[in-house]
Amino acid sequence: MLRLYDYLPSGNGYKVRLLLTLLNIPFERVELDILKDETRTDVFLSKNPNGRIPTIELDSGEILSESGAILYFFADATPFFPEHALDRAHVLQWMFFEQYNHEPNIAVARHWIQHLGLDDNRQRALPERHKGGYAALAVMEKHLATHNYFAANRPTIADIALYAYTHVADEGGFELDRFPAIQSWLARIAGLPGYIPITKS
Amino acid sequence: MLRLYDYLPSGNGYKVRLLLTLLNIPFERVELDILKDETRTDVFLSKNPNGRIPTIELDSGEILSESGAILYFFADATPFFPEHALDRAHVLQWMFFEQYNHEPNIAVARHWIQHLGLDDNRQRALPERHKGGYAALAVMEKHLATHNYFAANRPTIADIALYAYTHVADEGGFELDRFPAIQSWLARIAGLPGYIPITKS
Repeated sequence: MLRLYDYLPSGNGYKVRLLLTLLNIPFERVELDILKDETRTDVFLSKNPNGRIPTIELDSGEILSESGAILYFFADATPFFPEHALDRAHVLQWMFFEQYNHEPNIAVARHWIQHLGLDDNRQRALPERHKGGYAALAVMEKHLATHNYFAANRPTIADIALYAYTHVADEGGFELDRFPAIQSWLARIAGLPGYIPITKS
Repeated sequence: MLRLYDYLPSGNGYKVRLLLTLLNIPFERVELDILKDETRTDVFLSKNPNGRIPTIELDSGEILSESGAILYFFADATPFFPEHALDRAHVLQWMFFEQYNHEPNIAVARHWIQHLGLDDNRQRALPERHKGGYAALAVMEKHLATHNYFAANRPTIADIALYAYTHVADEGGFELDRFPAIQSWLARIAGLPGYIPITKS
């Protein structure tokens, strides 16, 4: 069976769990506690030299990592990845935006506050993460003010990628009530048939 | 004609320039100086609300941003994006790795040293960027010790994405002579027919 190396609080892991569940693809989870460096063991590094979850292992033994690449792999030829070339590129555009502009600010602020704790260094660095995170949320809000979804007028893996850390941004100290279009969109994603919350295995 | 909003020193812009040139796709460049906030004008923000280059504008007026998404759009159905599903996902895996683990360390260190200058804050933050950048280079070196290219046994947009900032990593204070497999791979990419250097428009 498809194996997902995962860490339950991770939004990056949740993206994969959520898509696989929406697609009714069975999988087994292997929980690795990143706070205990369980992704840095020799065994795991032999599978993913970058030492990160989510990583998947196919029945063939082949390995794939990076949440965006895993989403693409399973969504291709499903309704979660559109057919037309420019629509597909727009899906990837928002997924790269998420990994570059959104996750390093919003997910990292959440990880610091919820898991690592705010020592002096992190406390000093937090305003810069909040500034970057709010800038990303503003870009999303502007788009969602005139679109129901991020690309192709339908829910795609761009929405799944952006939903994962946006819907728990309050855990990183972000005030989502400033963003009404984002809130409506979050409700649309949470209403998808087969939706699961972030902590459900 | 296809229009590329660009900034010549940008490795992200160079990725697009390099691929379009390798594919013999004509384009016109619009140079925007990011140091003068020329990507933050109302006119440009109406095209890309995220205010970043590279951004392309098609003849139809449609807009696409994020270097990885632009590479995908033009490489699909060419030899630079493979056919098989898992190969394609591996290409994207390395492209997401580049944007998350590589660029924020190696490109940012280069941008600080070459363009913004090392004030006290950046001087204090530089070791963390070097640590992250060297970790990314080590992951690349490990892969390239047993592979000529990053995916599908051929040059793909994963190589183009990773080449852009790796080949100028010395400008960010990184010592590439520690990484012999990376150096051989850099020479293979620079030998591709149609190759252009980063500063050529």
